[in-house]
Amino acid sequence: MVEHFDIQLPSYSRGFHLITEEVLRHSGPLPRVGLMNIFIHHTSAGLCINENADPTVLDDFERIFNHLIPENLPFIRHTIEGSDDMPAHIKASMVGSSVSIPIKDGRLALGIWQGIYLCEFRNRGGSRKLTVTISS
Amino acid sequence: MVEHFDIQLPSYSRGFHLITEEVLRHSGPLPRVGLMNIFIHHTSAGLCINENADPTVLDDFERIFNHLIPENLPFIRHTIEGSDDMPAHIKASMVGSSVSIPIKDGRLALGIWQGIYLCEFRNRGGSRKLTVTISS
Amino acid sequence: MVEHFDIQLPSYSRGFHLITEEVLRHSGPLPRVGLMNIFIHHTSAGLCINENADPTVLDDFERIFNHLIPENLPFIRHTIEGSDDMPAHIKASMVGSSVSIPIKDGRLALGIWQGIYLCEFRNRGGSRKLTVTISS
Repeated sequence: MVEHFDIQLPSYSRGFHLITEEVLRHSGPLPRVGLMNIFIHHTSAGLCINENADPTVLDDFERIFNHLIPENLPFIRHTIEGSDDMPAHIKASMVGSSVSIPIKDGRLALGIWQGIYLCEFRNRGGSRKLTVTISS
Repeated sequence: MVEHFDIQLPSYSRGFHLITEEVLRHSGPLPRVGLMNIFIHHTSAGLCINENADPTVLDDFERIFNHLIPENLPFIRHTIEGSDDMPAHIKASMVGSSVSIPIKDGRLALGIWQGIYLCEFRNRGGSRKLTVTISS
Repeated sequence: MVEHFDIQLPSYSRGFHLITEEVLRHSGPLPRVGLMNIFIHHTSAGLCINENADPTVLDDFERIFNHLIPENLPFIRHTIEGSDDMPAHIKASMVGSSVSIPIKDGRLALGIWQGIYLCEFRNRGGSRKLTVTISS
């Protein structure tokens, strides 16, 4: 059995943000056994799973990804939407457009230090839409 | 219910290519509610989801990934298959070997700007095989 | 139908390691048609699929990822757990926390050169826990 629900996130600032609680707030009761896939309907923001405890980790993610894929690389041609746009596309494909998480005993079976990250790569990305798919 | 079908892609040149229409052409009618996973059976090509409108984005992907992981890094040892081979393996694991996309109302629920990319990282990768899995 | 089982891996050294056989050893008989998702419950190790034949590929993965995301970048703030920790988080999100693989005729439908990699990014990561989810 496969079910969907959508989440329209509020606008987040550029950077990495924990959205585990927001995803769970929109979920009804979860099945005892299943798999959750969370998909983002955008090409300049992504999703991943990482550390949920120390806010400096989120800041370091932003700094390291900016260091890896800086703006204004001289050979870039897709510049019409701003210098943050093309790096955002690349970063989005590096982290990915969806995450899959097991559901056990009616709960997301994340590791104790794991949280779901919204990776907002645009300066003004606006509200982002997610589709959550639950297979059980 | 889980179903598969295979797609044998034609040979693509090195670079990033939109294959959304090709995937849909091989799909029969999709279920009303489901999840599609597309898996590539190769280690020097990958799949991701990104911008479907401006061809310069595809070119910039190729340039930025080559910039990030250049050929002929002096410390590489797996060189027997050519200078494009080891970077291709790394890039493939950075974008990933599969993508998952929700199916709603019998259609792929991609965002308006999203398309499926074949990421061909070899100079002469040849024909690539995909398996599409539909859960419903 | 969705089923889970857990795998507690032995401690692996920092680097990339083939775990395909280990995953299969823990699986009972696989369904004829299905999809396997393997999820890692940690934020400084990841999973990906890549070349299964030449051990120098595994070594080159370690060298190239270290080159891309070196330790002791001067702007990093999350340093309390050691210089290998923050780079490990970034690398983990670049390769990802789970892989999905089709199951056909009761077998994992990997390409002939594909194997499942545990990507251990910590110097002493210890034993890692996986959850394998089989949809059929």
